[in-house]
Amino acid sequence: MSNQLETLIKKLGRLPGLGPRSGRRALLFLLKNRERLMVPLAQELHDVAMQIRECANCGNLDTGDTCDLCRDDRRDKSRICVVEDVGDLWAMERAAVYRGQYHVLGGTLSALDGRGPEDLHIDRLINRARDEGVEEIILALSATVDGQTTAHYIADRLAPLNREVTRLAHGVPVGGELDYLDDGTLAQALKARSKLT
Amino acid sequence: MSNQLETLIKKLGRLPGLGPRSGRRALLFLLKNRERLMVPLAQELHDVAMQIRECANCGNLDTGDTCDLCRDDRRDKSRICVVEDVGDLWAMERAAVYRGQYHVLGGTLSALDGRGPEDLHIDRLINRARDEGVEEIILALSATVDGQTTAHYIADRLAPLNREVTRLAHGVPVGGELDYLDDGTLAQALKARSKLT
Repeated sequence: MSNQLETLIKKLGRLPGLGPRSGRRALLFLLKNRERLMVPLAQELHDVAMQIRECANCGNLDTGDTCDLCRDDRRDKSRICVVEDVGDLWAMERAAVYRGQYHVLGGTLSALDGRGPEDLHIDRLINRARDEGVEEIILALSATVDGQTTAHYIADRLAPLNREVTRLAHGVPVGGELDYLDDGTLAQALKARSKLT
Repeated sequence: MSNQLETLIKKLGRLPGLGPRSGRRALLFLLKNRERLMVPLAQELHDVAMQIRECANCGNLDTGDTCDLCRDDRRDKSRICVVEDVGDLWAMERAAVYRGQYHVLGGTLSALDGRGPEDLHIDRLINRARDEGVEEIILALSATVDGQTTAHYIADRLAPLNREVTRLAHGVPVGGELDYLDDGTLAQALKARSKLT
């Protein structure tokens, strides 16, 4: 097999859900569907890599400096839902139970991985909560130790602003991640959100 | 989520081993490793789609009109191993037990899928077996009904040329347990039993 194919198989095999063997299968499948799948996939991967960037406001991934959700005037500007990751934002949007703003932190605080407040978009969140007519900040973080630590840290930072700070209701399985939750559970958790302080 | 991301997720989800949900995970992983993985992957997919073509001689996939294996003078020109697919050729090469030529058919005959002899590279195989100093044609086809039908068809076509036509042995896979073997394989293995000493 040529070197070029070998390195491509290795790259495909690094995708989550694929390994070296399924990377090989994926490449053969792509080579068999060259015009219909492989060429457009290469083009779209390139385009997305070049065009998609973090929204300067909320941290969502979209084309342009401000994302569709931030630009959408029909969305409730008085609520900010704080999520760890873009995948969590997508999960919330799929559930279609929330019509407010978002804020993507970019992870959680983690003593083990050495991630402190300066590694997350927390300052930007505080600024947004201060400047805009924000009434409520909903902390939709994972029900893990790191997620809850982050929630408490943010609540402490927000306390001087006198905003309502809520978190998702229990119903999120402890140790579970938002991205893997079914829509019904997400809806319940949003409806039963409670004050943190 | 933007339309651009949606269509990319759909394309990723069509790869064997991935689905809609893991397509999403794969895209997030790629976006997180944009410079290190996503951009080079897009480039390599494009390059391979443009440069890799079927070897005009054996049907292997490589850059250029004739593949590395066909150009390699150290390989035994008197033997042709006939496989269905490039993936099968790669499997044989990984096993590193064969040093002859290959011929990729591009599938098997199939009454159900409507694939006849004209859809496979059978004529080209007959020509190769006639023109070159070929002594043996090894049919390394799947032990399925379609695979065996194809083997018999090719053997009939090769008969006038007076070449040795062989097929891979059927039997107990190395490391396999008898208890889990199907009856057909056991019957074949018993019929083709060999002296131990």
